[in-house]
Amino acid sequence: MEGLQRRLAVARGDEPADLVVRGGRVLSVFTREWLEADVALVDGVIAGVGSYDGGASLDASGSYVVPGFIDAHLHLETPKLMVDEFARLVLPMGTTTVVADPHEIANVLGVDGVHWLLDATSGLQLDVYFMASSCVPASPFESPRRPLGPGDLESLMRRRRVLGLAEMMNFPGVISGASSELEKLGLEGAAHVDGHAPGVLGADLQAYVAAGIRSDHEALTVEEGRERLRAGMWLLIREASMARNLRALLPLVEEYGPWHIAFCTDDRDPDDIADSGHINGMVREAVAAGIAPEDAVLMASYHPAVWHGLSRHGAIAPGYVADLLVLPDLVSFQPTTVLKRGKPIEDTPRVEIPEWVRQSVRVAPIAPTDLAIPWSGGAARAIGLIEDQVVTESLEREPAVEGGHAVASAERDLAKIAVVERHLATGRVGLGFVSGSGLQRGALASTVAHDAHNIVVVGMTDRDMAFAVERLVAIGGGIVAVEGLRVLAECPLPVAGLLADAPLAQVVAWSRACNDAAHRLGWTGATPFLTLSFLGLSVIPHLKITDRGLVDVDRFEIVPLRV
Amino acid sequence: MEGLQRRLAVARGDEPADLVVRGGRVLSVFTREWLEADVALVDGVIAGVGSYDGGASLDASGSYVVPGFIDAHLHLETPKLMVDEFARLVLPMGTTTVVADPHEIANVLGVDGVHWLLDATSGLQLDVYFMASSCVPASPFESPRRPLGPGDLESLMRRRRVLGLAEMMNFPGVISGASSELEKLGLEGAAHVDGHAPGVLGADLQAYVAAGIRSDHEALTVEEGRERLRAGMWLLIREASMARNLRALLPLVEEYGPWHIAFCTDDRDPDDIADSGHINGMVREAVAAGIAPEDAVLMASYHPAVWHGLSRHGAIAPGYVADLLVLPDLVSFQPTTVLKRGKPIEDTPRVEIPEWVRQSVRVAPIAPTDLAIPWSGGAARAIGLIEDQVVTESLEREPAVEGGHAVASAERDLAKIAVVERHLATGRVGLGFVSGSGLQRGALASTVAHDAHNIVVVGMTDRDMAFAVERLVAIGGGIVAVEGLRVLAECPLPVAGLLADAPLAQVVAWSRACNDAAHRLGWTGATPFLTLSFLGLSVIPHLKITDRGLVDVDRFEIVPLRV
Repeated sequence: MEGLQRRLAVARGDEPADLVVRGGRVLSVFTREWLEADVALVDGVIAGVGSYDGGASLDASGSYVVPGFIDAHLHLETPKLMVDEFARLVLPMGTTTVVADPHEIANVLGVDGVHWLLDATSGLQLDVYFMASSCVPASPFESPRRPLGPGDLESLMRRRRVLGLAEMMNFPGVISGASSELEKLGLEGAAHVDGHAPGVLGADLQAYVAAGIRSDHEALTVEEGRERLRAGMWLLIREASMARNLRALLPLVEEYGPWHIAFCTDDRDPDDIADSGHINGMVREAVAAGIAPEDAVLMASYHPAVWHGLSRHGAIAPGYVADLLVLPDLVSFQPTTVLKRGKPIEDTPRVEIPEWVRQSVRVAPIAPTDLAIPWSGGAARAIGLIEDQVVTESLEREPAVEGGHAVASAERDLAKIAVVERHLATGRVGLGFVSGSGLQRGALASTVAHDAHNIVVVGMTDRDMAFAVERLVAIGGGIVAVEGLRVLAECPLPVAGLLADAPLAQVVAWSRACNDAAHRLGWTGATPFLTLSFLGLSVIPHLKITDRGLVDVDRFEIVPLRV
Repeated sequence: MEGLQRRLAVARGDEPADLVVRGGRVLSVFTREWLEADVALVDGVIAGVGSYDGGASLDASGSYVVPGFIDAHLHLETPKLMVDEFARLVLPMGTTTVVADPHEIANVLGVDGVHWLLDATSGLQLDVYFMASSCVPASPFESPRRPLGPGDLESLMRRRRVLGLAEMMNFPGVISGASSELEKLGLEGAAHVDGHAPGVLGADLQAYVAAGIRSDHEALTVEEGRERLRAGMWLLIREASMARNLRALLPLVEEYGPWHIAFCTDDRDPDDIADSGHINGMVREAVAAGIAPEDAVLMASYHPAVWHGLSRHGAIAPGYVADLLVLPDLVSFQPTTVLKRGKPIEDTPRVEIPEWVRQSVRVAPIAPTDLAIPWSGGAARAIGLIEDQVVTESLEREPAVEGGHAVASAERDLAKIAVVERHLATGRVGLGFVSGSGLQRGALASTVAHDAHNIVVVGMTDRDMAFAVERLVAIGGGIVAVEGLRVLAECPLPVAGLLADAPLAQVVAWSRACNDAAHRLGWTGATPFLTLSFLGLSVIPHLKITDRGLVDVDRFEIVPLRV
């Protein structure tokens, strides 16, 4: 109560603030106006907006003062950085709060991993909130370390920074009324649920919303977005590295205003963030496209907070958390000052990484012969890559046969692909072919392979493929490019096989070296390892592969290699 | 889960709805559009909006379909009707949900009374939500049966239909940081708090909001409203019988749009509701004043629900409670059909009234001599009435003296006023004079006397005043006009001395008879008993009276009768 009494005394002007942000144009997200006002901060909270004297001050004259940006939905694991390094990257860009779905680490380390991530983010200056990952595994064809059940979700949703249930990716299950999915939606903490309903329209969309799911970040078109808004869903406009939807959806902001719309990054690569920014990059692009700056900031601050019920975030008004950005103009959206809970950005201490999260790669001994495909000739299913997209084609190709085995062949544009179960060392391997990679020699492998994050490896020889897998085991996970039993480049991701234990610059350098090596091996697309990492995601059309074999996503079943 | 499975099947179109509202123009409160669509209802919930066949249907072609109206803030006791009768009155007007502050009954019957009101409203077709009354008594100068402490509030806020803490009327206490008030704000259930901050502006308003209070229904002017919106408060526009603020505040809707604005009635008399409607009357008047019908409906349905976190009320979309109004036009806002949880308005069964809520008037034996004021001459403080307003003047007048006592005098326009403690029979009486009533003869008395609801009596002779008090004791509370020891008219309000046990028409007839009698006795203002009922409210400027004596509200202290 003493803290509140002090806050009120500062608000009244009876006691000096810890800091007064003086003379700026302050955005009221409520009236969408710029107020010429001081902002008085105390104990990390905004006490008042008006005319305030006394105490330390920060001169904001000639500048714009807006609330800190909030990412409405992201996967912390995608930038491949430890959480402290991620905070170092995005705080200076004005992202002061994020809401994370930790489903990558949940697939690898189970609910323990999520509790660890909650603990690991608790001391950061960046506010990290979570949603409990609803779909681990993403489909019955994938093999995480273990599935997350309703009990796991309950234990997560009881934690203070867990706001609800994360994206309900099993939309066919929800729409059809599958008991397993409705049980999750009925959990006590699941009053707040994020959606994930790519392409769902009409009566199916009504059913999905009727189940209580009121957001979606998968809308690609104005039509999809409009139907979601009308049905009472929040439209989380996503600008991910591999799925850029901002431009396509901004017409909805022009048509209806910014109401029930918020920004998110979902999956963004580290170099993409370093190059184009984070949520501030979305604001910049929206304003460049003609959206009023006030509305763009609303969708990047107040609205994510409203959607997630973060009632003390996202606005500059009495009682709100003092997350403030000082902007020199309304063009670049690169803050000159970021205040997080009233303080400038501090040195983020390194988060300690316990041994158990580093020891996640368990693979049964693998020999090149384990990757052999006995074959007498005839057509095989092949995953057809579409450059830099996550959707694939389902093709039929005749592989070359050598010594009674189907083999990779650069001539036929067929590389071999394997998914090696890597959580429990079961020795389970799924085998198939990939067309359209351009790969000529060597092999590429990754422990980042959505969503189950088993090892995915694509190569032109079984020996190089087995060698690449062994190398990943040796370094505790990561990505690697090999040729002739030599490592060309690698990016170690020892934390759950997903995150680096190195600074941003190093991770970006490693990552680029890996991509360069892949291109030297013949890969033609711009993002070889990102492409690789989605070939195991069995809920994205059309043909995918897991450790259990090829998955026809349209038929939603395992299919044999032979046609 | 079966219910949800059925809802999804109806949404998908696989099973027939209980009812399809067919062919109307359906308001999407999210995009502010009229959609040509059917609405499929099942188990009292909206399953889908789109194209639906099968099952029973209601033809809405040529009509407008909007969500049921929600009153964001009212006192259920003001219309003087038992809750079932109130429901019978407002449901056909399209009010399907109300959020009530039960602070009248709380003053009379304590927390028991509120729990009873919660129970009494639980079986109604009308959804009645509550806020826990934060300020019982309204000031230290008032005597309720007993004060409501933090423990009482906690017990209330744990009940399912209690949403938070009701209007924090002790705004000076909050702003100054009084521990008693901050303790209430710190209670677990008090994350959601309604405000009450008449005239508060500038740094004081910032402090009030900094305490976590984010609504106000006391704004009278555009300037007050604008400052509240900018500070992040919800503006609950009030159109009460004695405080009509709608017209004055509508320019804010034109300026900023309907965001963070909701409608409420606060205190409305039964005949006012019968004559001008309820929330629908506010919508009608707003539209007549030039507000877009979509925006007016938003402020009357979706926005009250958003403010109060009623996440399944106030919209026509999948998963929302099926509260729908069919409107023939966008002018009258008198629905032709009201659906409440998917059903037409039903016969509301009479709510049983237990004996203990009828036995609330306990007064020590009172004789005319108890009302005598020994006086030797000289000036006395007098409450100066301002016609049909709740604010009074603080006057100084010289009363007539007879036999060593100050007495009422029609010539001098001075009536006598007494407040008689009526909860614990303490015999405590506050005495004073009223100027400006016009009263010539007799006496008027009421057990409805905000907020403590002790008996307030105004009269020209001590004998008639004592007789009026005795009559109220005899009938268990109500209002009464007497002359020459005869009852001219009365309106029995046996339930806590606040509510009638009679139908609307009877209550209105009684109430009018009482007002007519008051006018025959000389009262000049239009609303004698309503005016009377606010003379004891010691938080409204400038001079008021309680059983403890005259209260100078500006100095916030008891003052003697003698100047």
